[in-house]
Amino acid sequence: MRTTIAHIGGLDARASEAAQQRQQSLTKPAGALGRLEELSIQLAGITGELRPRLRPCQVIICAGDHGVVAEGVSAYPAEVTAQMVLNFLAGGAAINVLARLFGAEVLIVDVGVKSDLPDHARLVKAKLRPGTRNFLHEPAMTRAEAVAAVEVGIGVAQQAIEEGARVLVTGDMGIGNTTASAAIAATLSGLPAVEVTGLGAGVGRDGWRRKVEVVQRAVDLHMPDQHDALDVLSKVGGLEIGAITGVVLAAAAARVPVIIDGVISTAGAALATEFAPAARAFIIPGHQSLEPGHRVLLEYLDLRPLVSLDLRLGEGTGALLALPMLDAAVATLNEMATFDDAGVSGPVE
Amino acid sequence: MRTTIAHIGGLDARASEAAQQRQQSLTKPAGALGRLEELSIQLAGITGELRPRLRPCQVIICAGDHGVVAEGVSAYPAEVTAQMVLNFLAGGAAINVLARLFGAEVLIVDVGVKSDLPDHARLVKAKLRPGTRNFLHEPAMTRAEAVAAVEVGIGVAQQAIEEGARVLVTGDMGIGNTTASAAIAATLSGLPAVEVTGLGAGVGRDGWRRKVEVVQRAVDLHMPDQHDALDVLSKVGGLEIGAITGVVLAAAAARVPVIIDGVISTAGAALATEFAPAARAFIIPGHQSLEPGHRVLLEYLDLRPLVSLDLRLGEGTGALLALPMLDAAVATLNEMATFDDAGVSGPVE
Repeated sequence: MRTTIAHIGGLDARASEAAQQRQQSLTKPAGALGRLEELSIQLAGITGELRPRLRPCQVIICAGDHGVVAEGVSAYPAEVTAQMVLNFLAGGAAINVLARLFGAEVLIVDVGVKSDLPDHARLVKAKLRPGTRNFLHEPAMTRAEAVAAVEVGIGVAQQAIEEGARVLVTGDMGIGNTTASAAIAATLSGLPAVEVTGLGAGVGRDGWRRKVEVVQRAVDLHMPDQHDALDVLSKVGGLEIGAITGVVLAAAAARVPVIIDGVISTAGAALATEFAPAARAFIIPGHQSLEPGHRVLLEYLDLRPLVSLDLRLGEGTGALLALPMLDAAVATLNEMATFDDAGVSGPVE
Repeated sequence: MRTTIAHIGGLDARASEAAQQRQQSLTKPAGALGRLEELSIQLAGITGELRPRLRPCQVIICAGDHGVVAEGVSAYPAEVTAQMVLNFLAGGAAINVLARLFGAEVLIVDVGVKSDLPDHARLVKAKLRPGTRNFLHEPAMTRAEAVAAVEVGIGVAQQAIEEGARVLVTGDMGIGNTTASAAIAATLSGLPAVEVTGLGAGVGRDGWRRKVEVVQRAVDLHMPDQHDALDVLSKVGGLEIGAITGVVLAAAAARVPVIIDGVISTAGAALATEFAPAARAFIIPGHQSLEPGHRVLLEYLDLRPLVSLDLRLGEGTGALLALPMLDAAVATLNEMATFDDAGVSGPVE
């Protein structure tokens, strides 16, 4: 973890500048491609290339269970975590459909699913414990377990990159993990639980009230130190959230763009930038979810997502929907004619 | 035109309902795919199919010049309209790049470009006049010319659909056409010019002030009847805007989804719904541009765009960026496992 963090540097200023200059010469009013232009410049800075390859694109779904589910904070039973992992392995979930559509691969990492899972080529078995402890009563995990969770993410991401991945996409699966993410958002932002807690997978009104209370009581009980990411992660986080933190750190260290998903991934990414502020520049915020904590965490990171379609599914779906926008950013930068080439006049003013 | 309008009916309620029911059975919390779910239901209603084919996808760029450019309302000289048409034909513009990337075809329609254009397989020559008249002083065109412009769009769209197109994308090219669109937006909304006029391709501060004044004076001079779309189109519209109106009407009549682009396309689409209110259901708003008139026209149509990337380029680029979202909507509806298939538990509540 220390080595990875030490490897995170800045963007390649020369490549960013070259991309910016090329944008000025293309047959369109300056800036008319809006965020696609910014994105092309960011991708050049991340990779050091004007035309980075964006495939293979590897979705890494980090899965783990949450002891706090015992408090009735979720609409679904904890068993659904493992059931959905099996669905991912069978190719039937939304993330699988989008991955086939946009040309990405899906890998699942069991960092802490409650039940046993079968061997499978697309499943990395790295279970640290069968779910976190119930953080309403005790820290979700030990500090050592939190470090181990981050290191699982680092290891999986590093291997994916070694095997050729040019873009990483973070995803999550874990019944109860919007509760943990809300607690992280409350801690990092200093806001009360009621402002950062959402409906997750669709808990009812009573469930939501319980959830808000649980988040607030957990934060009050543990008083995580917002300047100590390991303290936050271990006390009110999740094993899969720690793994996502690791994926983001490893991507940044390897100069590979990482598209983050909704509130859970963004909680993991926010912790990554606590460990290594420079990691932020390598993060591409995929989508804006409906979870209020997501908005708060994006503001905390000062990131504006590319896509906003009212998703609240997780798995990496919102992140993957942004991949065609990355494709569009790179393609327009590289394939458009310049004013000179096309004989198009510039502005009169 | 009358026949086309008479053919526009409602959505296929049975197909929409079937899509809605299928959404409920898929392995995700109800509604968790947000606007992708709504989109899948709308596409089913438009086409009558749960799994509509979305290719061939035909981008139709309607091009025309504007007499009002003489007033110094644009950052670019009128010649750029024809130069950019040549760029489209050569494949070097942003829309060409995106079309290659997402698997769409590009067709250009000259409804009123000032200069002569060469013969080309991807260019429909249907010039009604070499640009509109300067609407600061006289109506942009006659009522008969406005009808003819709409009919050009209808004809081109009908032929594209006959040749197999399953989705249409509207695009525009015409130096000065954000000025005409602002006048249409001011007329339909009743708002003052200053609230609906933007920077277009990047006119400077003085140019913007002139542009606002020109729009306001034109609306005050002609007092177009907001309940008479032909009156609006002929007095302060554009030939290419009329053609876009025709494309939208023909798509709706043929039950083909039509993705609209920014402020110019949305002005054309708004006029289409004046001719035929039922056309609205067949329109898919692609993106939110930076033009203030675009927001006003989208509100007028009560449509919320799928993508928001601060584009202000036109050509159909913002619309085409939404195509992968349509692909995602159709793919998730059709390829995801159901709760029963996957053995995933439903909610506990």
